[in-house]
Amino acid sequence: MNVLIVYCHPEPQSFNAALKNIAVQSLIELGHEVDVCDLYAEGFDPVEHPRHYQSRRDDQRFLPLNEQRHAFDNRQLAADIDHQIARLQWADLVILQFPLWWHAQPAMLKGWFDRVMVYGGLYSGSRRYDRGVLRGKRAICSVTTGSPEAAFGPFGRGGDISRLMYPIHCSLYYLGFEVLPPQLSFGVQGGGLSYQAEDHFQQHLETLKDDWQMRLPRLESEAPIPFSGWDDWDEQGVLGLRHPQRWL
Amino acid sequence: MNVLIVYCHPEPQSFNAALKNIAVQSLIELGHEVDVCDLYAEGFDPVEHPRHYQSRRDDQRFLPLNEQRHAFDNRQLAADIDHQIARLQWADLVILQFPLWWHAQPAMLKGWFDRVMVYGGLYSGSRRYDRGVLRGKRAICSVTTGSPEAAFGPFGRGGDISRLMYPIHCSLYYLGFEVLPPQLSFGVQGGGLSYQAEDHFQQHLETLKDDWQMRLPRLESEAPIPFSGWDDWDEQGVLGLRHPQRWL
Repeated sequence: MNVLIVYCHPEPQSFNAALKNIAVQSLIELGHEVDVCDLYAEGFDPVEHPRHYQSRRDDQRFLPLNEQRHAFDNRQLAADIDHQIARLQWADLVILQFPLWWHAQPAMLKGWFDRVMVYGGLYSGSRRYDRGVLRGKRAICSVTTGSPEAAFGPFGRGGDISRLMYPIHCSLYYLGFEVLPPQLSFGVQGGGLSYQAEDHFQQHLETLKDDWQMRLPRLESEAPIPFSGWDDWDEQGVLGLRHPQRWL
Repeated sequence: MNVLIVYCHPEPQSFNAALKNIAVQSLIELGHEVDVCDLYAEGFDPVEHPRHYQSRRDDQRFLPLNEQRHAFDNRQLAADIDHQIARLQWADLVILQFPLWWHAQPAMLKGWFDRVMVYGGLYSGSRRYDRGVLRGKRAICSVTTGSPEAAFGPFGRGGDISRLMYPIHCSLYYLGFEVLPPQLSFGVQGGGLSYQAEDHFQQHLETLKDDWQMRLPRLESEAPIPFSGWDDWDEQGVLGLRHPQRWL
């Protein structure tokens, strides 16, 4: 299996880096090919911007979707985007490793979606969801949070983690991925926001690392999140009243 | 009332720009002070990065929360961040004007949270939620989407819009804002993803603009989204079983 790890943290000694390193080592030991896309180290530019388009379809108005399609069709995408797309096409499994910052992925990883997932190339009106370009591949988010697990329950003050993860899962599913339930490493406290004593905390981090290491061999066979698809929807793109998932 | 409009779109002729312009003109006519933060025009850098910290607390490991607090306490924040914070402190109402890209705000606006909302300055363990630094202020997201409204219903293929907006609303609420229900401009089609004929589409855009213009005078008095607060939570930060919002 070819595994692409998209890793987004500015500090090589961070806990996110440790989780990324565990994935690299474990997956290689399991016999897989592993490619690490270290967004910070590669200096990825997350801002969708006219500066990335040398030859524009429209020089007067910058409409990102139009320019993405135009650049893809004419093989004029920025070199880094071409490279990112090739890595995605190569991968059977994509692991997104990131900290939850402001209830979502860091800006750099958000921009990885904005820029890499080009219209006309990685999706179009007829190539989305279960007809998506990346169908047949799997994706999983491995996420660290500062606050402990209780805060992220359905009525926790940190926000319901299943609702916080929903937008990025929607994006992965939109591209055709089978999306696995995320690996959640709660309570990776920092910056003085401390929830437990230092010795317990270090033990907690070891448990989180072990948990990730134990799960990695199973990612090939785990059941993905059940999203609905084209055959489930009516003309408006809405799930039919008689669909079982409507009554979960 | 002092109104800060944080506007995030790369194209001055876009529909997002039109909605921003309507807000500026209407609010000035209503007698308010208006400041527009045009993130693209100002070249805002959305990437939280060591390069923004000239004098580090820790030169060996870059831990963003620690460095944010250190820089804030020592008045060493980057000049653009100081300026952004001053604008927030000045504002009574903040309008975030952006397109929904990949099920969330564009990377540039996501990074505005990552970098401007500095730990130790705009929040701390004891200054969050209804004790947040920005309490007493209001915030609203004005959002355009490509797909029509039906796709964003609870069982729509575009993803339930109330779930898609939840993370950014959580972030605003975390800072202390009273968060108004968003202004949603659905079906701003583009890039060949067309959902209706051109003449109907132009009429649709006019209706969307009118709707926003009609709402603007009411933003001072509209009821915000009911979030729970410190007095509602138990020791774990979870809403009590007898709290009315638990049974909505």
